[in-house]
Amino acid sequence: MFALTILGNNSAIPAFDRNPTSQVLQTMEESFLIDCGEGTQMQLSKYKVKRSKINHVFISHLHGDHYFGLIGLLTSMSLLNRTQDLHLHGPPELEELISLQLKFAATHLSYPLHFHPLKNEGVIVEGNKMIIECFKVQHRIECWGFLFREKRNLRKVNAERARIYEIPASFYEKLQQGFDYANKKGSIVPNEEVTVPGPKTKSYAYCADTIFDERIAEKVKDVDLLYHETTYLKDLHERAAARFHSTTVQAAAIAQKAGAKKLLIGHFSSKYEKLDEFLKETCEVFKNTELAIQGSCYII
Amino acid sequence: MFALTILGNNSAIPAFDRNPTSQVLQTMEESFLIDCGEGTQMQLSKYKVKRSKINHVFISHLHGDHYFGLIGLLTSMSLLNRTQDLHLHGPPELEELISLQLKFAATHLSYPLHFHPLKNEGVIVEGNKMIIECFKVQHRIECWGFLFREKRNLRKVNAERARIYEIPASFYEKLQQGFDYANKKGSIVPNEEVTVPGPKTKSYAYCADTIFDERIAEKVKDVDLLYHETTYLKDLHERAAARFHSTTVQAAAIAQKAGAKKLLIGHFSSKYEKLDEFLKETCEVFKNTELAIQGSCYII
Repeated sequence: MFALTILGNNSAIPAFDRNPTSQVLQTMEESFLIDCGEGTQMQLSKYKVKRSKINHVFISHLHGDHYFGLIGLLTSMSLLNRTQDLHLHGPPELEELISLQLKFAATHLSYPLHFHPLKNEGVIVEGNKMIIECFKVQHRIECWGFLFREKRNLRKVNAERARIYEIPASFYEKLQQGFDYANKKGSIVPNEEVTVPGPKTKSYAYCADTIFDERIAEKVKDVDLLYHETTYLKDLHERAAARFHSTTVQAAAIAQKAGAKKLLIGHFSSKYEKLDEFLKETCEVFKNTELAIQGSCYII
Repeated sequence: MFALTILGNNSAIPAFDRNPTSQVLQTMEESFLIDCGEGTQMQLSKYKVKRSKINHVFISHLHGDHYFGLIGLLTSMSLLNRTQDLHLHGPPELEELISLQLKFAATHLSYPLHFHPLKNEGVIVEGNKMIIECFKVQHRIECWGFLFREKRNLRKVNAERARIYEIPASFYEKLQQGFDYANKKGSIVPNEEVTVPGPKTKSYAYCADTIFDERIAEKVKDVDLLYHETTYLKDLHERAAARFHSTTVQAAAIAQKAGAKKLLIGHFSSKYEKLDEFLKETCEVFKNTELAIQGSCYII
């Protein structure tokens, strides 16, 4: 299980107390920060998200509403005497900007910052429990989406049945991994006889800023929660396309085609004060949709 | 008359709903933005300060808590289709940073941005009604203070007396400027006979981040309102000095030595939740002191 908290849900200009884009995906072990618009460090404080659990930060693209809060967060972590490593994944140019800002301030971070430039689609982080991939989306400048998947869960051993087959406890780890057991007499105990499947793994896809692009559906196939931007309502599909953004019904179409379990929509244009119509229009095409609301936590 | 509104009053790390440093000095004609910490554009919206009246922005130094909100403000002004010129005054390196951020976002501002690097002490802006100087303060990196002075107000013509001396109305502008009048018979009418002094001009000095440095007092002599940082209470004077910051009593000593009419203190360390003690300690040395409180407007 993991949980997504929205720190900012607005597009380019902050408006109506809606901040620019930032999200944090939290697991029991650690948190993953996805985009970091201006004010993200204040939003983290406001919603009581522990900075010390953030070991990876992902920046989708270099439009300000997705990263102008990054340098403030990085330097504040240093002022708070962070010592543990931080991994930053983003477009290659980001490294130069951060280096310059630190240089001009004569600041040396208190912790090791590892920069990982996004270059090719595929796995960018593989931990014990989570595997994270990046994929390209179509925006006015280079832009990346991120797919978070829990690793295959281990099977659960039925200890009572394992004892009947006289399987030693030292073999249980192999059983969890799906191996059959060969006893001393040479006969095979099939794995399914003594185990049941582990809990289902979960997944989350963040599609960043993108024009309507059906190829995205293939990249996020069967995801549990899909975040797709809806900068505009459906009547403004021409403006959306001209600015490399999407509308409500376009996000819904991607969710439908991907077979997503649930859709989360955000990155609302500052021209809209109320968001009800976004939910209404999207739900008409893809029922299981929710608005990305700041401070709300979505359990996956 | 002008008025100063505090947009952020905290030092390095935002805390207790206190934002990093930013202030706006408003006159009838235009507004001057002084420093621009992260979140300044949101603070401008919150406190209903019109961005369209801001024609000059002053950045004291390149520590993030004084300028990380600048690029967001500049790009938002562009997204809002600003067309009028904007003048930016700051350390020379700032230009490179802004250029890079705009380049990586493939953004062209909708308005002309004129960058004026701070190099020498002295006048940096001279308008019809205001003259603005920069002066050096002592911080860990290059840092500038700013002195805003209304220009000398014109003398007021006493029209009744001017008529007695048969001074033509066409000479009134010269009278306002202080000239004597020579009539056709060759005799002189002294200016003081037919004019009274105009209203007193006002001044504001912003001393940015600085270690205790008595030379500042000379630079801001007789100012109406003096802003001086008090990052720490007086017991932490050693820490203040080590970090090139000041304490309460040090700010008060500068105000006293400068003969300032009033002192405004801010840039409070995140280690302090309550600010009462700052006011108490400072007032013990310099009575006419106020705390810089976000959203508060100080009439000068």
